[in-house]
Amino acid sequence: MSVNEAVAARVEVPRGLAGVVVTDTRIGDVRGDEGFYHYRQYSAVDLARSRGFEDVWHLLVHGELPDARRAEAFTAETAALRMLPDGVREALPVVAAAGGRSGPLAGMRTALSLLGAAKGFRPVYDIDADRRRRDTLEASAAVPTLLTALYRLGNGLEPVEPREDLSYAANYLYMLTGKEPDEERVRAIEQYLISTIDHGFNASTFTARVIASTGADVAACLAGAVAALSGPLHGGAPSRALDTLDAIGVPERIDPWVREHVLAGERIMGFGHAIYRTEDPRSRMLREVAQRFGGPRVDFAVEVERHVEAILAELKPGRALHTNVEYYAGVVMELCGVPREMFTPTFAAARVVGWSANILEQAEDSKIIRPVARYVGEGAPVAVPGA
Amino acid sequence: MSVNEAVAARVEVPRGLAGVVVTDTRIGDVRGDEGFYHYRQYSAVDLARSRGFEDVWHLLVHGELPDARRAEAFTAETAALRMLPDGVREALPVVAAAGGRSGPLAGMRTALSLLGAAKGFRPVYDIDADRRRRDTLEASAAVPTLLTALYRLGNGLEPVEPREDLSYAANYLYMLTGKEPDEERVRAIEQYLISTIDHGFNASTFTARVIASTGADVAACLAGAVAALSGPLHGGAPSRALDTLDAIGVPERIDPWVREHVLAGERIMGFGHAIYRTEDPRSRMLREVAQRFGGPRVDFAVEVERHVEAILAELKPGRALHTNVEYYAGVVMELCGVPREMFTPTFAAARVVGWSANILEQAEDSKIIRPVARYVGEGAPVAVPGA
Repeated sequence: MSVNEAVAARVEVPRGLAGVVVTDTRIGDVRGDEGFYHYRQYSAVDLARSRGFEDVWHLLVHGELPDARRAEAFTAETAALRMLPDGVREALPVVAAAGGRSGPLAGMRTALSLLGAAKGFRPVYDIDADRRRRDTLEASAAVPTLLTALYRLGNGLEPVEPREDLSYAANYLYMLTGKEPDEERVRAIEQYLISTIDHGFNASTFTARVIASTGADVAACLAGAVAALSGPLHGGAPSRALDTLDAIGVPERIDPWVREHVLAGERIMGFGHAIYRTEDPRSRMLREVAQRFGGPRVDFAVEVERHVEAILAELKPGRALHTNVEYYAGVVMELCGVPREMFTPTFAAARVVGWSANILEQAEDSKIIRPVARYVGEGAPVAVPGA
Repeated sequence: MSVNEAVAARVEVPRGLAGVVVTDTRIGDVRGDEGFYHYRQYSAVDLARSRGFEDVWHLLVHGELPDARRAEAFTAETAALRMLPDGVREALPVVAAAGGRSGPLAGMRTALSLLGAAKGFRPVYDIDADRRRRDTLEASAAVPTLLTALYRLGNGLEPVEPREDLSYAANYLYMLTGKEPDEERVRAIEQYLISTIDHGFNASTFTARVIASTGADVAACLAGAVAALSGPLHGGAPSRALDTLDAIGVPERIDPWVREHVLAGERIMGFGHAIYRTEDPRSRMLREVAQRFGGPRVDFAVEVERHVEAILAELKPGRALHTNVEYYAGVVMELCGVPREMFTPTFAAARVVGWSANILEQAEDSKIIRPVARYVGEGAPVAVPGA
C-alpha cells in the first residue's frame, strides 16, 4: 500500500494505540489474567529463581538458554566489554556535572548515545545479524559501568573500574558501592534484574522498535528507549513505593494512614497494576527474596502490604488490588545497598537486555513503523499576509 | 479501556501502522494529490517565498504568524539562546572525536541530550506550557551552534561563536563557514530551511511524540527524533541526489546513464516521492532558488531533471515521476557552501522546529502512546532446565 492509499484508507483505532497490534514477537508475553509472564516460553520468575543473569541475557539475544560451555563463553565475552572507550570515559565527568534536575536517565541517555558513536555503531540495516547482536552486547555490557560512574561522579566519588571476574550482577554492585558485595546481595539483585529484563510492550520498548524500524544504529534505539523510560507516565519507579513506607513510618500508623489516603481517593504507590488481576508474579518472587534477608524493614513492608490489601478489599471491594513490582523491588534494592536515586537506573540496567532483544527482532523486519496524523485544524488555505 | 480489555480486543492494522491515525494535529498537513502542504493553513512554500525563518518558527510553536513587534521580540529571544552552556561546550571536542562512522547525527543526538541536562530540562508533564515552549526554544536555538561546532571540531577547525545580530539562517552559515555570508546565500538557505520545518507524520516526528507521550523532557524527545532521523529508511538525505549528478558528470552522459540505470531496475536518487503524484512543491520552489544563482552546475541539474523525467515517462509510462525535495535541496545547499556531510544535519536544523511543535501539541494530551505486540512463539510454557 502506498502512503497515499494508506491516507485514503485511514484506519481509526483507540487513543494512544491501545490494543493496536504493531508487531509480532517471539520474545515473550504477559498473561495478566493468569499472573504469568515469560521470556521465550520460560516463566520469567522461574528463570530468576534458578538461573544467572548472563544465562537469561543469552536466552533473550540468542533465542535459547546456553549450555555450560556456551554460558561460560558468553559470560567471558560480555565481561570483556565492560570497560569504556577512552573517549566516553573522558566525557563522563562533564555528563555527570550536567546532571541535576533532569535526573540520572538523562545522563544514561547521553552516555549511551556517545558510546555508540565512540564504538562506531552503524545502521542496523547496513550490518549483518552477528554484528547487530555484538553491538547490543557492547552497549548492554557497558551500561553498569556508565551508570555507576555517573552516579559516583555526581556524588564526588571516583568511578570504580569494572572487574571481569565478577558476574554482571556482582560487578554492578561492586562498581556502585566500591566494595565487593556478599553472595546474598548479589543473588538478590540478580533475581531482581532477571525479572525486569522484559515485560510486554511498554513505551520504551516500543520506542526502541520504532527507531530500529528506520534502520538506525543500536545506540540510537537504546538512547530513545531510555528517553521514553524517563517519562513520568512510563512507570517503573520503585522509589515511590519506599516513599510510602517512609511516609507511614511506624506500624501503628499503617491503619489510619492507609484509610485516610484511600478515602481521599489517592492511589497508594506500590499497589495495583494495569495488567495483573492476580498477584503480580514479580512481586511474589521479590517478597521471597526480601524475606530471605528478614529484619524489621522487611517485616514492616509485609505488614503494610497485609493492611493495605485488607483495607483496599474493604473499601474498594471487587478490585483485588495487590502489590505491584515496584513495592518489593524497592525493598530488595534498599537491602542490597542501592541508593534510591539509582533504583530506576538499576531497572534500566536490566531492561537494556529486553530492549536489545526487541531491536534485534525489529531489525529482521524491513517495514518502517510510521502511522499518520489527522489534520483537524481549519481546512481552507489562508494567504500569507504580506506575500 | 484497561490494558487487559485492550489486549482482549486487539485491533489488527496494516503493517508498520500504515494509515493508522495515531493522533489529531493542528500543525499542518500534506495533500499529496494536490501537490500542496501547509503549516497551520499557510502554504509552506508561500511562507518560504515571503517570510523569514523566525516568523515561521513563531507560527509553528506559538500557533500564529507574529506581527512586527512580536517578530522582533521573538527574534531577539531566540538569538539570545544560541550560546551553549559551558558544560556542553567543554564536552563537544569529545563528542566530535567520538564521531566517525556513526555520522554527524550521532553527535547531534548526544549533544542535544547533554544540552537538555545542562539546562535542567524537566518532564513536559511537570512544567507549564510556557516553560515547555521555552525549553523547545532553548534546544532549537542551540542546534546550529551544536551542529557547526561538531562539524568544525571534526575537521580540525575552531568552532565559531554565534552572533546575535544575524538571523537564524545567516548565523548558521556564518558559524559553519566562519565567514559572513552574502544576502543571496542567506536567503537561499533560509528558504530551504523554512520548507523543511515540517512535512507530515514521518518516523522522527512520530518518535518525538511517542517519547513526549510518556511525559519525558524536551531533550529526550528531540534526541529520540534525531535517533530516528539517522535511520537509512527515514529519508531526507539530499546528498544522494548530488551523488547522481556527480555520477553522470557531463551532459552527453545523461541519456545513456539514465537509460542504463532505469532499465536495470534501479531507482534514480532524487526522483519519485511516496506521497506526491504531482510535482513536489518543495522541489519547484527550490528549483527557482537554484536558478536565481544560475551557472553551469544549476544548468546541468535542470538538464538532468528534464532528461530523467522524459526517459522515465517513456520507460515507465503512467508513473509521472518528478524530482523530490532531495534533488534541488542538494543543489541549493551546495550553492550556499554547505559541505555534503552537513546536508542532513542542516535538514535537522530546520526540522527541530517541526519536532518542537509536535512535542508541544503531544504534551497537551495526557494519553501515553503504547500499542501491543502479539506473541507468536510457541504457546506452552516450558520448564526451565535445571530449575
